[in-house]
Amino acid sequence: MKFFEDIAIGERIALGRHTFTADDIKAFARRFDPQPFHLDEAAAARSPFRALCASGWHTAATWMRLMVEHQRAADAAMRSRGEPVAMLGPSPGFRDLKWLKPVYVGDTVDYATEVVEKRVSNSRPAWGLISIRNTGVNQAGEAVISFVSVAFVERRGGIAKEAS
Amino acid sequence: MKFFEDIAIGERIALGRHTFTADDIKAFARRFDPQPFHLDEAAAARSPFRALCASGWHTAATWMRLMVEHQRAADAAMRSRGEPVAMLGPSPGFRDLKWLKPVYVGDTVDYATEVVEKRVSNSRPAWGLISIRNTGVNQAGEAVISFVSVAFVERRGGIAKEAS
Repeated sequence: MKFFEDIAIGERIALGRHTFTADDIKAFARRFDPQPFHLDEAAAARSPFRALCASGWHTAATWMRLMVEHQRAADAAMRSRGEPVAMLGPSPGFRDLKWLKPVYVGDTVDYATEVVEKRVSNSRPAWGLISIRNTGVNQAGEAVISFVSVAFVERRGGIAKEAS
Repeated sequence: MKFFEDIAIGERIALGRHTFTADDIKAFARRFDPQPFHLDEAAAARSPFRALCASGWHTAATWMRLMVEHQRAADAAMRSRGEPVAMLGPSPGFRDLKWLKPVYVGDTVDYATEVVEKRVSNSRPAWGLISIRNTGVNQAGEAVISFVSVAFVERRGGIAKEAS
C-alpha cells in the first residue's frame, strides 16, 4: 500500500478479471445464497433471471479477492524496490452498492477501482481515509457491479509517530 | 414471501444467529479475503484488529444465508396453510453498509431485518420495491454490521396480470 499522501484522487487501478463458472456459482450459493436461480439451471430458467447467475455477494466478494491480490503484489514490488510500505487499516464499510446486470455462467468480469475522495481521519490522526469507486464490467462492456468503499490508509510516518 | 401489499413498514424479522469459528473465518478468507488478520492468529495479533476476525464480506454473506433460510421456511409454512406465495425478484443493490465492530473468533452474531420503505416499481408495475434495514448484533449487544438492502417483491396477482 502506498502512503495516504502518495495516493491521488482520480488514480485508477485495473484489478484483473474473473470468469464465473457454473461450479463456482453453485459452490458459493450453497454456502451463502442458496436461492434456486443461483443453484440450478432449470429453476433459473423459470426465474426472472432466465438462466443460472452468480449471487451478487459472490460478485462482490470476488472484487475483494482481486483487490487483496493486487495489493499483495504491489506491496511486494515496493519492498523489492526498497520502498517503505504503508499499512492498510480496517474498512468502515461502503455505500451505494449496485448490482446492475446479472452475472451469468461463463461471464468474465473485469474489476477496477478509482480513488474518488481522501481526507485525514479526525479520530485517528495517524491514518487517512480514502474512498474508492469499484466497478466490474462484463465481456460485453456492461457494468455488472458498482460500489464505493472506504478504507483507512496509514499516513507517512503515522504509526511510528503515534507509538512514540 | 408475502406479497408486496401484505408487507408493513416497521415489520421486524429475527433471522437467527451464527457463531464464527476460526476454521470458518479462515476458509472464507482463503477464498475471498486473504488478508493476514483473517487468516492467521499471530499476524492478526499484530494488526489493528489485535486478534483473528472475520472478513466483513463473510459477516455480510452470512446475513444472506440466514435471510434465504428464513424465507424458505416462511414460504413452506405459507404453502402448508394453502396460502399463495409471492415471488421475490432480483435485488438492485444496497446502501450504507457499515462494519461497526470486528467479528472475532467465537462471536455469535444475531441477525435481524426491518422493513423501512416500500413503493410500487415504476418500470415494472407487477412488482413492488421494499427497503429493509439489516443488522447483526454480537453476544455483547454491540452492532457489528448494518446495511439497507432493496428487493423486488411480487404484487398480489402481479405476475399473472403481466403474463395475461
